[in-house]
Amino acid sequence: MIADRIRFCLVRTTHPGNIGATARAMKTMGLQRLYLVEPARFPDDEVTSRAAGGADVLDQTVVTGTLVEALDDCALVLGTTARERKVGWPVVDPARAADLLVEEARAGRQAAVIFGTERSGLSNAEVEQCHKLIRIPTAHAYTSLNLAAAAQIIAYEILKRAGAATEAGGAPRTVAADPREMQRFYGHLQEVLYELDFVKTRHPPVVLMRKLIRLFNRARPDREELNILRGILTAVQNGLK
Amino acid sequence: MIADRIRFCLVRTTHPGNIGATARAMKTMGLQRLYLVEPARFPDDEVTSRAAGGADVLDQTVVTGTLVEALDDCALVLGTTARERKVGWPVVDPARAADLLVEEARAGRQAAVIFGTERSGLSNAEVEQCHKLIRIPTAHAYTSLNLAAAAQIIAYEILKRAGAATEAGGAPRTVAADPREMQRFYGHLQEVLYELDFVKTRHPPVVLMRKLIRLFNRARPDREELNILRGILTAVQNGLK
Repeated sequence: MIADRIRFCLVRTTHPGNIGATARAMKTMGLQRLYLVEPARFPDDEVTSRAAGGADVLDQTVVTGTLVEALDDCALVLGTTARERKVGWPVVDPARAADLLVEEARAGRQAAVIFGTERSGLSNAEVEQCHKLIRIPTAHAYTSLNLAAAAQIIAYEILKRAGAATEAGGAPRTVAADPREMQRFYGHLQEVLYELDFVKTRHPPVVLMRKLIRLFNRARPDREELNILRGILTAVQNGLK
Repeated sequence: MIADRIRFCLVRTTHPGNIGATARAMKTMGLQRLYLVEPARFPDDEVTSRAAGGADVLDQTVVTGTLVEALDDCALVLGTTARERKVGWPVVDPARAADLLVEEARAGRQAAVIFGTERSGLSNAEVEQCHKLIRIPTAHAYTSLNLAAAAQIIAYEILKRAGAATEAGGAPRTVAADPREMQRFYGHLQEVLYELDFVKTRHPPVVLMRKLIRLFNRARPDREELNILRGILTAVQNGLK
C-alpha cells in the first residue's frame, strides 16, 4: 500500500500545534507514517488537540535523534524548501514530487518528504540527504507557508496522484542505497580526497563535497553500484600506500 | 488584478486561529480579500499571531452580519463541502474550481469561495447561494480537513492557475557535458581502474564499465562536475606514481 511507503519527516519542529496539524493533514489524505526528528515538544496536549481525528497517526509516530535514522530504508528523499539555494539542488513542484513519490511507493520502495524547522527550514547538511527539493509555488510578496499548510498541499497532491494513477507495474530491479549508506560513501569519498591532497590544494572541501553529493544523489546509486564505488575508493587507498 | 477579484468568505468561524491561518494561507498564494460572516471572535490576538506575515490581510478584512452582504457584487460563488448533499449541487474539484475562479476574475468580474463553520460546514440555505460546490478529495477514512488547510489547498490551486509567481525552476543554469566529453571521462576512468588493478582483479571490465556508465549517465554531469571528476582521476594517477 502506498500509505505504508510514504513518510513525512519533521525536523526539529518548534510548535507542537504544527505536529498535530500535520498529522491531521496526512490523515485526511490517507497518509499515516510520521517521523519526528528532535521535536521540541512531543507528546504534548497541543499536538493531540490539533491532530483532531488524525490522532491515531500520532500513536505510530516515530521519534528519532537524527535525520538519517528517520530516513532509514528510504530509496527516495525529497526535501521542502522555500528559498533559493546557492548550490542549486534539483527542484520539482508538488505535483511532480507526488508523481515521483507514488511511483516509488508503487515499485515497493520507501520514500520520504522532509520538512525543516519553522524558522529556517532545512540546513545544508539536511538538504544533502535529499535527492530533490520540492518548492511549493507562492506569491512573491510572502513565501512563508505554515509547516502544516505545506504538508497539507503535498499530501493533497499525493492523494491526487495515488488515486488517479493506474498500476504501472515494473517490479523493483535493484535495491536502492539508503541515506545511511550514502552518508558512509560520502565519508569515504572525502577521506580519499584528503589522502589524495585533492581537497586541500584545489577546492574548498565543503563546496566541493556539496557538488559531489549533488551529483551522486542525482544518480541515486543502488546498493551494487555503491559497492563498486566503495571498492574503487578502497583500491585508491591501497594504491597510495 | 486577479487578487482583487477573488475573495474568501468564512461563515461563522468558531476558532480565531483558523481565521489567522486562513489569512496567512491566502497571503502566501497572493490573495488578500477576506470576508468574515459573524465570526465568533474577531479581532483577536490569536487571529493575529496565527496570521504571521499575512497580518495585512486582516487590516482589510470585511466583517458582515449575513452571507449575502459578503457576496455583494459576486458573479460566481463556489462553496466548499466535505459531504454528499441530498439535493445534488454541481460539484467540482479544486483544480476545476480554480479554473472557474481565475476565468471569472480575468473577465473582470468578482468571484467568491465560501467556507462553512468548522463543525458542520455550510447550511442548505448557504449552499443555495452557491453556483457550484468544491469538494477537496480526501481519504475515505477521514474527510475532515481543517478550515485553514482547505483554504490553503484552494488558494494554492488558484495560484497554480493564475500563473505561479515564483518560478519553480531553481536548478542551476549549467552547461551539460556532451557525449564526447562523457566518452573522454569514461576512457579516463577505465584507465585509472586498470592502473589501480581494479578491473583485472575484481570485475570483468566490460560489465563493470557498463555499470559505471549507466550510473554516471543517470546523473547527467555538467561540465564543471565533469572537470571535478577528471581532476580526481588525475590526482589518483599522480598519487600512484
